[in-house]
Amino acid sequence: MNEIFLLQTGQYNINVPGKVGTPHISEQIYQILELLFISTFWLLQLVYYIGESIYLKIYKPAPKSVEGEIVLITGTGHGIGKQLALQYAGAGATVVGWDINKENNDETIKEINQRFKNKAYGYICNVANRENVLETAKKVQEDVGDVTIFIANAGIMPCHLLEEHSANEIQRIIDINVMQIFWLLEAFLPSMKKNNYGHIVGISSIAGLGGFPNLVPYCASKFAVRGLLESLHEELRTDKKCNIKTTTVFPYMVDTGLCKNPRIKFDLFMKMIQPEEVAECVMMAQRREELLVSIPGYLINLQNFVRLCPPKAQMKLIDLLDSGIDSDLIREPVKN
Amino acid sequence: MNEIFLLQTGQYNINVPGKVGTPHISEQIYQILELLFISTFWLLQLVYYIGESIYLKIYKPAPKSVEGEIVLITGTGHGIGKQLALQYAGAGATVVGWDINKENNDETIKEINQRFKNKAYGYICNVANRENVLETAKKVQEDVGDVTIFIANAGIMPCHLLEEHSANEIQRIIDINVMQIFWLLEAFLPSMKKNNYGHIVGISSIAGLGGFPNLVPYCASKFAVRGLLESLHEELRTDKKCNIKTTTVFPYMVDTGLCKNPRIKFDLFMKMIQPEEVAECVMMAQRREELLVSIPGYLINLQNFVRLCPPKAQMKLIDLLDSGIDSDLIREPVKN
Repeated sequence: MNEIFLLQTGQYNINVPGKVGTPHISEQIYQILELLFISTFWLLQLVYYIGESIYLKIYKPAPKSVEGEIVLITGTGHGIGKQLALQYAGAGATVVGWDINKENNDETIKEINQRFKNKAYGYICNVANRENVLETAKKVQEDVGDVTIFIANAGIMPCHLLEEHSANEIQRIIDINVMQIFWLLEAFLPSMKKNNYGHIVGISSIAGLGGFPNLVPYCASKFAVRGLLESLHEELRTDKKCNIKTTTVFPYMVDTGLCKNPRIKFDLFMKMIQPEEVAECVMMAQRREELLVSIPGYLINLQNFVRLCPPKAQMKLIDLLDSGIDSDLIREPVKN
Repeated sequence: MNEIFLLQTGQYNINVPGKVGTPHISEQIYQILELLFISTFWLLQLVYYIGESIYLKIYKPAPKSVEGEIVLITGTGHGIGKQLALQYAGAGATVVGWDINKENNDETIKEINQRFKNKAYGYICNVANRENVLETAKKVQEDVGDVTIFIANAGIMPCHLLEEHSANEIQRIIDINVMQIFWLLEAFLPSMKKNNYGHIVGISSIAGLGGFPNLVPYCASKFAVRGLLESLHEELRTDKKCNIKTTTVFPYMVDTGLCKNPRIKFDLFMKMIQPEEVAECVMMAQRREELLVSIPGYLINLQNFVRLCPPKAQMKLIDLLDSGIDSDLIREPVKN
């Protein structure tokens, strides 16, 4: 029987130069020298930016004000979205809350309008439906004005084996978690570009940093959110004068009801997070104009480090930590 | 004006333990000791697996035979798919080629049947359409038998600013590049599980490792491919006896016609790759049961390393390397 050879990359190297006309020898020497120069220059920059990031970790920049901002949040009927709506309203922003569930959403909006002096606006919208997003966006423009910050927060997380997902369920995961952002961008990016001002926030997940059993379509959707925002950020910054920011957030398991059967071995270190805490981190990351933030903060760097290890070592670590989410189809949740 | 603070993660730490009942002190001590023990044990394993991966880089394992395998490849009318079909047929596998373009696909199948003794089968299929995939899969089962290897290769890559993508175009990118794999899995995973034998190959991209301008929906789709296969691999290996493998491939820019206006500063080191070379790497990675492979091999480790740097340093490096794909809407391609 064949042993499994899970070697990451480079087991054989393809000879990239060759075949399609190699550059002239003088051009080759020039390219080698330029690459050497650039590499040295970049290493110096790297040292500087490492220093800067350590400095900024100690002396955190003050979060910018959100007064006067019109903040659209999807999924405000519940969980992280509701907390985001409350916290942004508390910080002085005009909140526009979208949800597919009228009753829950009305409650959030009512709570804001009772507690804070700045008015909040609620709309019913199915973010998976492009026409619905564009129509609702038009209403928001008429009622409230140009949205300056949007947070694509609404999401679903069915959790079971891939073959237990119905086709319709898979399609909904992609439509809600991913296509939502495309339709929101279609609706709001033009006015942000016109005003050269705006901030786009996407909520990915720990499942957008690594793969998990029972969450195949969800992981695909949350990886897609990362790729979408990372390429959008690269595209926006090709225009040096562009003042539209992006922030992608990767929360660990959050106690919102989506995560029904968590299995956490080291709950002293890796306890489920409360939606209030996530909302606070999201708002602070946006107000500090951070590009990427995981909750807790060490998660993304830990994951970047682990990715450098051979795949077999990565799998051993996953097995030793023995944490994840059990199927939501199990009637009696398995308890340790 | 506000400076941009693009600090990655950890600018503020959320105090994860707390609030929701901390474990008893004896339990806390036990968890700390267990985590210390596990960490030490894992570091030893890490050293072993690093050694193993160096050994396997030098003494490459022999690729396993594909004789007797039924290999389904999508997008066999053209580019990498066509080369994969020819190379798998050359290596003795029974090839099943799917394409939406009948004429091109017929040509590939004809070429195989002329050059090799093992028969190849061609089918017209729109992989974005679930019903079409399931129907065609049923025909393959009747005509050829159980597919033992499938390579989800068909893909599209429109290349222009996000707002220049039509809604229909964005939907097609997701449907072809991502949903294809879900429908192929719906069609073929059950028989692979029944026989406890199979191999699933996904073609991601360098655009599945990092974001690029002009490719926002494409990057989202290729990140999704990575997340899908990574979580599927994790799910499959929860069953220790499972003998179904996965391989994800991340090619650099390939000279297939998809990539119309490449912009490559250091073409001595980063030349476009020919589809023949990519096909060879894909087949060898599958036959050596590698989990992840980039083409060229160093790409994925380079990218993993760069991800550890502060985001500003990452962006500086991207700017210095100055490579990517210009818009395909530019009538006269920009040449250096």
